[in-house]
Amino acid sequence: MKHEEAIELVKKKLPERRFQHTMGVYEAALALSEHYGENCKKVGLAAILHDYAKGMDQESMMLLIQASKYPNKILKWNPVVWHGFVAAYLMKEKYKINDQDVLDAIAYHTTGHKSMNDLAKIVYLADMTEKGRDFPGVEDIRKLSFENLDEAMLFAVKITLQHLLEDEETIAPYTIGLYNALLNLKKD
Amino acid sequence: MKHEEAIELVKKKLPERRFQHTMGVYEAALALSEHYGENCKKVGLAAILHDYAKGMDQESMMLLIQASKYPNKILKWNPVVWHGFVAAYLMKEKYKINDQDVLDAIAYHTTGHKSMNDLAKIVYLADMTEKGRDFPGVEDIRKLSFENLDEAMLFAVKITLQHLLEDEETIAPYTIGLYNALLNLKKD
Repeated sequence: MKHEEAIELVKKKLPERRFQHTMGVYEAALALSEHYGENCKKVGLAAILHDYAKGMDQESMMLLIQASKYPNKILKWNPVVWHGFVAAYLMKEKYKINDQDVLDAIAYHTTGHKSMNDLAKIVYLADMTEKGRDFPGVEDIRKLSFENLDEAMLFAVKITLQHLLEDEETIAPYTIGLYNALLNLKKD
Repeated sequence: MKHEEAIELVKKKLPERRFQHTMGVYEAALALSEHYGENCKKVGLAAILHDYAKGMDQESMMLLIQASKYPNKILKWNPVVWHGFVAAYLMKEKYKINDQDVLDAIAYHTTGHKSMNDLAKIVYLADMTEKGRDFPGVEDIRKLSFENLDEAMLFAVKITLQHLLEDEETIAPYTIGLYNALLNLKKD
């Protein structure tokens, strides 16, 4: 799928504010992709499509995750993390995107995953740092993301976990798997 | 095993400071056990023995966990959490303690576990709040532990997770399972 087509697709699907966020993620992801010599075609496509399923109703998302190859345990997690997996499933089944890198980056953009590659890390960080984002620490993540992807990821995941604890929200095990993997990488 | 025998056993095994901590946990655990009408014999025994394997060398602990029925994935976690599982295994195999409640309370006193019962929660909280403990929040946990075990556990686990994040230490998945279970209990 071409970037233009993907943009048309999400423009029809998402409310204006969410679409503006998506365009911010697209821009931030392309900048990081160029900086690190990543595949801009793949990174851009994943960035455009990452929130495609945001705003779908929970029952539909549940059925689609059950139909997908993603593990059913995801359905026990906070429903706010489901939309990534649902979007990846729909992109594969309905829009015939078969690039696993693109699908993984979409699927894991909220929970993260211990096996994320650089492409998925770029989309994750772009989602947290696009120009519309404003929270304590965002400038540090923005800066770090152009210095070292893994250090930026560790910082970003720590902030995410701290917010979840403060708000007494449940934590997806994938996020802890990612946090531990990033720490072990640092200690190696 | 009688409490007196267990005390003799750990007195020989542990350095003085650790033994004093153990006696503090014993006292705190008995107070909570009486308060909640728990089985003081079991609670006291688990409290006395919880740190039996603290200070064992990592290689021995690794071999014992491999020999035990505890999952091998524990060996990928921070070695500081191993001693509970090792102590539970040794108490069962060497000292013929077969009470699963006692063994579970010992095994999970550091990581916690989503299936902890009240007995195990009492030992976990006593370990965090015994009179020798002094850290920001300890008074709140002490107070809460006599009001509501699950609320005290949630508060205690949140503080533990916040410390692990601040110190950039890895987080055992059992601890996240417990945190999520306590939150779901609160939201039900």
